[in-house]
Amino acid sequence: MIQKVVMIGAGNLATQLSLALHENGIEILQVYSKTVASAKALADKLDCSFTIAVNKIEKHADLYVFALSDKALQLVLDEFILPIGTVVHTAGSIPAAIFENYSGNYGVFYPLQTFSKERNVDFSNVPICIESNGSKLQTDLIELATKISNNVHLISSEQRKQLHLAAVFTCNFTNHMYSVGQKLLAEKELDFDLLKPLIMETAQKALQLDPIVAQTGPAVRFDQEIMSSHEKELKDSPVFQKLYRFVSESIYMMHKSK
Amino acid sequence: MIQKVVMIGAGNLATQLSLALHENGIEILQVYSKTVASAKALADKLDCSFTIAVNKIEKHADLYVFALSDKALQLVLDEFILPIGTVVHTAGSIPAAIFENYSGNYGVFYPLQTFSKERNVDFSNVPICIESNGSKLQTDLIELATKISNNVHLISSEQRKQLHLAAVFTCNFTNHMYSVGQKLLAEKELDFDLLKPLIMETAQKALQLDPIVAQTGPAVRFDQEIMSSHEKELKDSPVFQKLYRFVSESIYMMHKSK
Repeated sequence: MIQKVVMIGAGNLATQLSLALHENGIEILQVYSKTVASAKALADKLDCSFTIAVNKIEKHADLYVFALSDKALQLVLDEFILPIGTVVHTAGSIPAAIFENYSGNYGVFYPLQTFSKERNVDFSNVPICIESNGSKLQTDLIELATKISNNVHLISSEQRKQLHLAAVFTCNFTNHMYSVGQKLLAEKELDFDLLKPLIMETAQKALQLDPIVAQTGPAVRFDQEIMSSHEKELKDSPVFQKLYRFVSESIYMMHKSK
Repeated sequence: MIQKVVMIGAGNLATQLSLALHENGIEILQVYSKTVASAKALADKLDCSFTIAVNKIEKHADLYVFALSDKALQLVLDEFILPIGTVVHTAGSIPAAIFENYSGNYGVFYPLQTFSKERNVDFSNVPICIESNGSKLQTDLIELATKISNNVHLISSEQRKQLHLAAVFTCNFTNHMYSVGQKLLAEKELDFDLLKPLIMETAQKALQLDPIVAQTGPAVRFDQEIMSSHEKELKDSPVFQKLYRFVSESIYMMHKSK
């Protein structure tokens, strides 16, 4: 059973995940981060100790959670003095096997969500994607994940990579579409609030109806008149104009091939 | 005061709008549509009469609402026997002045929302964008809009066109990003449900934080390693690969120029 955790990292995901674990009875022994400021900020929230020295990391945790950027993960791993205990990382696109030369017990604990320090996330429905190199650890990780979420899944490294790619479209690219909307409105002195009910309804609709079937707008009906009028409006923003044309083509291609 | 309305059109928007008006005490005298099936379907919901003949449209309504596609709007208008009474359309990209040769009292009543027949929309927070060619009509349209929504705005034709363009990015293009996510998951036999908490959180975040500032993901931090690994994963889907590269570039350009 996993009761004592060391959190390696103090970014958005590390912050939200360690708070959720802490609130659900898991003891966060220590926070490691590269800078005192970020390590201390998180340790203060968790009322635990922190360190910025890899050789000062506590030796007796049940689990070491590497919640770091992909680049930092490899760097920190190389500094560890072998052997480390049981380890997981929280990355979408990195195979579990990155740990195979460092530990006998390793896995992945990937919460599929977008995290900011400014917004507390309700973990109860966040999909937690679990992978491990052994069945005992798998059981322990599922038990740990179930403490914070009702949405726990066994997902292979290959599937997780695809999930991460899909999340880039669904979250990062979607947010960029919101940003373009915001910029276009600002040009005509219109308030971004005008788009908020549309943003919510578009998201809620996708939870109920299949988004491929629910697609609306000029591109899916190939309304060339509106599309060229929109492109003309974007003549002073060549990047948005190209984006408009290209996303429209992609919509049209997806629906033509149905 | 507007009390009796004829609804010209029976599509998604016409259906949801006339239901909202009807529920808030406005009498829908009649529904016009090109086909009996669609005219009757909506008239049945409203318990009113319908017609498919332009010359049978009731003569004594306070307002004629043209809730039609852009193409159909001009076609139906050309069939009308002059003079028509007070008219509005519900289109994003068409100037109010399309009516100037047909009526002395005209305007626009544009609900900025995405509508499907399968989903009832709560109009109370839907932005209703009003425009008119006279101050008496403007007062009447604001009064009518206020019956169904707390979110009523005076918006010029030029601003409305930009709003519509921004809505294409925010709604239609966002929905396409959801669709790409769905397709990618299906390829690895993963359930679209896995992405739903992320879809909702991304939308809710945009209501609270400025989306330009809140942008996350590999493109905004120009993480070339992840981006080229994602592009490689998409090698069998050239359209998605091009889309990935192009949206990433657009994100990078927007943030570089900040």
